[in-house]
Amino acid sequence: MSRFDLIAFDADDTLWENEHLFLEAQAKFKALLSRFHPPEWVAARLYETEMRNMQHFGYGIKAFALSMIETALDLTEDRISGADLRAIIDAAKAMLAADVRLLEHARPIVASLSSRYDLMVITKGDLRDQHAKMGRSGLSTHFGHVEVVSEKTPAAYEAILRRNRVAPERFLMVGNSLRSDVLPVLALGGMAVYVPHPLTWAHEAADAPDPAPRGYFEITDLAALPALLDRLETGGD
Amino acid sequence: MSRFDLIAFDADDTLWENEHLFLEAQAKFKALLSRFHPPEWVAARLYETEMRNMQHFGYGIKAFALSMIETALDLTEDRISGADLRAIIDAAKAMLAADVRLLEHARPIVASLSSRYDLMVITKGDLRDQHAKMGRSGLSTHFGHVEVVSEKTPAAYEAILRRNRVAPERFLMVGNSLRSDVLPVLALGGMAVYVPHPLTWAHEAADAPDPAPRGYFEITDLAALPALLDRLETGGD
Repeated sequence: MSRFDLIAFDADDTLWENEHLFLEAQAKFKALLSRFHPPEWVAARLYETEMRNMQHFGYGIKAFALSMIETALDLTEDRISGADLRAIIDAAKAMLAADVRLLEHARPIVASLSSRYDLMVITKGDLRDQHAKMGRSGLSTHFGHVEVVSEKTPAAYEAILRRNRVAPERFLMVGNSLRSDVLPVLALGGMAVYVPHPLTWAHEAADAPDPAPRGYFEITDLAALPALLDRLETGGD
Repeated sequence: MSRFDLIAFDADDTLWENEHLFLEAQAKFKALLSRFHPPEWVAARLYETEMRNMQHFGYGIKAFALSMIETALDLTEDRISGADLRAIIDAAKAMLAADVRLLEHARPIVASLSSRYDLMVITKGDLRDQHAKMGRSGLSTHFGHVEVVSEKTPAAYEAILRRNRVAPERFLMVGNSLRSDVLPVLALGGMAVYVPHPLTWAHEAADAPDPAPRGYFEITDLAALPALLDRLETGGD
């Protein structure tokens, strides 16, 4: 019998690349505003707008587009051109339709683990966008369920575990965000595997737990996950 | 024993008023553009933009805001002012923060039914916005779960029923949209109660099933729901 009743994966920048879409859109945005302000200044103001708008708009590409438009108006004293505003809206549409680029080991690792474990995806952001990416990823068949939540709080994880009748100590979460995938799961008494991604949004940054608590693991990429699970199944931790 | 294992309610314009927020924002939008075009023309173009953008943006207030901005650029040949664009973004934020106005009978009917039935909310739109409204409504404690879906298709209902181990013939859905709350549930073999709301978005319109199939009911407001359920429990249909 396995030590785990459920293993869940974050999606963006854990199973597939995502943050690069935001960085590329942000680069275009900085170029649009380059005759008004230096790029670092534009990026810092955009981040401020995003954080201020989080309470209204939450996460995701539509929220990002509205914050880009608001920042463009702010930083140009309303002199941003209609063509530039259209470019922002078009960039958002292109992001929503972008190909899903799986991370290198995602497909074989997920396929192999799905024969031994109940797998789930737990992600935040736009419901529609996340389900659409899941469909385009070709990975759907390996996951029993996809949960999209507004925020990855301990309460959000607790509700998912309760609904699926899974005890926290028999749950393992895998993801690239210490803030969203690791710390709230450890707080509940679950286990969490941190898989850092070179591109991680500043908002998701958090300090790694130090000293490492029971149940916390870090691996460099998903290829290392099966060996870690084997070790945990045979009693190592 | 009850005839139903699960009764689900739509939220927007079934439990609380919602469409008025869109109509009020649209009225402001028509006023902003009144020096360029007659209001009916503006409304028709906005609806076209919303339908064209549905594939990208889906439902909800952020999608609506982006479509308003795009329509404003289109209809003014980019001459819309920065101040007017800010007014559109501010209107979206105000919509997202608006008080939840419960429909007249929603609170007592839901409270009373929750002692006899497992109740759920099934709604579409922005995940974050729908959960926030649920919290502000004060009705959360009566519902075992809130499901937010991207589209209310038969497949979406089927997935919810499967996950909750509910047979379609033991499921009843209550809502104001024939297209989203009634027809897909009847297609699965479930029962559906149509509660028309005076304000219903054109996109949600559909013809009432004629002749009325087994399992289809229409009531004028939620106050009539308990009597209908009593009739169904005692074998009438």
